[in-house]
Amino acid sequence: MTLESFVSVSNNSDFPIQNIPFGIFSTSDKSTPRVGTAIGDKAVDLSEVAKAGLLDGVQGLNDPVKIFSESSLNTFMSLGRPVWRATRLAIQDILSKDNAKLRDNSELLQKVLVPLTEVKMHLPARIGDYTDFYCSREHATNVGIMFRGKDNALQPNWLHIPVGYHGRASSVVVSGTDIRRPAGQKLPAKDAKAPVFGPSGRLDIELEVGWFVGKGNNLGEKIDINDAQDHLFGLVLVNDWSARDIQAWEYVPLGPFLGKSFGTSISPWIVTMDALEPFLVSGPVQASPEPLPYLQENKPSAYDINLEVQIKPAESSKFETVTVSNLKHMYWSVTQQLAHHTVNGCNMRSGDMGATGTISGPEKGSYGSLLEITWSGRDKIAFENGVERTFLQDGDEVKITGRAGKDSSLGYNIGFGECSGKILPCLYQ
Amino acid sequence: MTLESFVSVSNNSDFPIQNIPFGIFSTSDKSTPRVGTAIGDKAVDLSEVAKAGLLDGVQGLNDPVKIFSESSLNTFMSLGRPVWRATRLAIQDILSKDNAKLRDNSELLQKVLVPLTEVKMHLPARIGDYTDFYCSREHATNVGIMFRGKDNALQPNWLHIPVGYHGRASSVVVSGTDIRRPAGQKLPAKDAKAPVFGPSGRLDIELEVGWFVGKGNNLGEKIDINDAQDHLFGLVLVNDWSARDIQAWEYVPLGPFLGKSFGTSISPWIVTMDALEPFLVSGPVQASPEPLPYLQENKPSAYDINLEVQIKPAESSKFETVTVSNLKHMYWSVTQQLAHHTVNGCNMRSGDMGATGTISGPEKGSYGSLLEITWSGRDKIAFENGVERTFLQDGDEVKITGRAGKDSSLGYNIGFGECSGKILPCLYQ
Repeated sequence: MTLESFVSVSNNSDFPIQNIPFGIFSTSDKSTPRVGTAIGDKAVDLSEVAKAGLLDGVQGLNDPVKIFSESSLNTFMSLGRPVWRATRLAIQDILSKDNAKLRDNSELLQKVLVPLTEVKMHLPARIGDYTDFYCSREHATNVGIMFRGKDNALQPNWLHIPVGYHGRASSVVVSGTDIRRPAGQKLPAKDAKAPVFGPSGRLDIELEVGWFVGKGNNLGEKIDINDAQDHLFGLVLVNDWSARDIQAWEYVPLGPFLGKSFGTSISPWIVTMDALEPFLVSGPVQASPEPLPYLQENKPSAYDINLEVQIKPAESSKFETVTVSNLKHMYWSVTQQLAHHTVNGCNMRSGDMGATGTISGPEKGSYGSLLEITWSGRDKIAFENGVERTFLQDGDEVKITGRAGKDSSLGYNIGFGECSGKILPCLYQ
Repeated sequence: MTLESFVSVSNNSDFPIQNIPFGIFSTSDKSTPRVGTAIGDKAVDLSEVAKAGLLDGVQGLNDPVKIFSESSLNTFMSLGRPVWRATRLAIQDILSKDNAKLRDNSELLQKVLVPLTEVKMHLPARIGDYTDFYCSREHATNVGIMFRGKDNALQPNWLHIPVGYHGRASSVVVSGTDIRRPAGQKLPAKDAKAPVFGPSGRLDIELEVGWFVGKGNNLGEKIDINDAQDHLFGLVLVNDWSARDIQAWEYVPLGPFLGKSFGTSISPWIVTMDALEPFLVSGPVQASPEPLPYLQENKPSAYDINLEVQIKPAESSKFETVTVSNLKHMYWSVTQQLAHHTVNGCNMRSGDMGATGTISGPEKGSYGSLLEITWSGRDKIAFENGVERTFLQDGDEVKITGRAGKDSSLGYNIGFGECSGKILPCLYQ
């Protein structure tokens, strides 16, 4: 029997009753951020659902009123996968068309359901640490060819290690937040000896998917690869904005820093691993070389999630697609990333975030950064009415969307909403 | 007139009344962490001082009972330098030998003063983000010679940029916390093609000084270099433990990751910039090249702070000195680090931490890492009774101390206490 809700959900909605993502929102009449889910074109105020007693008795979810009245998901995340799962099932039950408790309580419905167009979304978690990986073979190869030539494109460690680096947590912002073009040191010409200071002239996007740690681990202990999925609370879309000129000059030998830390956008709704489980597929074959044992998984761990990047140039009124990719292209899985991250004993806390790195597919139309699409600025991207771009201009808007299940036989999609941002001019010359 | 306290302070104490550092502590009879300062060999419970009303009326310090009963300094840090300064002066007044309020109240003294040997120290702040720099020219040159030869020791950007990278905040621990030897991928031989998994065999220390952001900045705006000192709350000692074999294999091209994120130790007492102001000196000349304008300072910004590393090998009962260095050797100042970090609009939050990178002096006896002291393991360090080391063995203990004012005419020292840790054996083979 198909699960259906009394809340109407259009065919192409990101948020059918099978999804039940978690996020933090506020409304104009109640500015305190609180926990919600989304169904169809409505946000569901879970703090009100809890106050009405409808979440009483969910195994392990003690004091749902307190937990869902908090301004971040961190406490809920810390409870572990059995509790997330039981809570999601309870919410599906409350929203199902056969359950009268909420459906027929018009006074409560009034408090619980809010049009998504009327909510303000906040960061879903207090992000303790943010780690960015570099796990798409196509992306690493493309960048490698541009920087070091075809024969040395992949570094010697790349096929052995899910390469990653620590990112900046303070500048992770929720979708819809404007992004200020950064200033910094950059070389005025490729072979210049000394840098100049000024606004970045090569402002780029990176199409990524982020994962949130639900339940962490103690310092000194690892998370086993085959337990890793249970530690992950869910996924979001990520735009890891990048200033390529600042990055190119600064990154030797300690990695990306100010070329990234001016802003990282994420979509507001965390889609749970349970909702995404039907879309698990086998990832790329890892046979040559085989990963070391601590990175070998005993079950599928890639996700078939379609990803799309659209740009609305400042002089245009319309978003146009520049890339269509898929998370399943990624060489190293999110669970391999988490297992690797902790194998040295590094501790994860509830709310810590990782991101995959740019997800590029095999063809040009599936590349996840302007650096790759324009081949380092050589080729222009053509928009309607003769508008062209290599890198982003002030006023440009970027929107990433993602959806699992397009064309699947399940009869529904699991979507992520959007991850968007608009470029503001630089403050410093 | 010399400032003196009624609390006895020995001549060589790190904590004279001129210091007044801030930290978080608990005691066996009251396990709730709270704010304190240190004087002589006593901790001073500032929550009790506040409850007695002795901090009433300090300009800008509203609700001192609440602020000093918190389990981190973040709220106090957010109040800004005028408030930190007024509070420090008020505490000095309360502790001075001419002030009877606390001195003659034996019941209150009983609650306020606790022997330092009886307190448990905690992390002084909730560290949002931790950034590690690479700002000692001697260290960068030494490492560069080992890795790339004498002619290419410094990378082209090094004299233009205070090179830094994002570190891991979750694994920053307070002095005294044991450090678990990490496992990870490493090359079995220098020219091996494939890595093996196992415990790090090249476990190292890095002698660093850390800075805490007091008042932050908004995302998109920078902190001007000549305002940077007022944004800094104070300094601590840092041991940035490093697994050199893991680091060497993983760090290309995105920088250090698991070779560092298994643990970073800090000393528990944050010594304020006001206490350190008498020890400001001019740093190394930056003339060839001159820094870009946003990195040019209009006042001295180096600190004359003696630093020492001692090791007690597992088979020994005594700490022996392996390095004596000084913060003033550092090429890029802590204020240049902060100004650079924010020039792209990256936001700092109260409690965010930076560290200088390894502070090496010009001679071998002043190098800040075993990598440099042993020249990548070539030369052994000799301890008493024939004990030798290149890198750290299980059971070894490391202790960093720091002190400004040794041999100065001021008649007192401003010390940091200690930053120590002991190596536990690896859990994974």
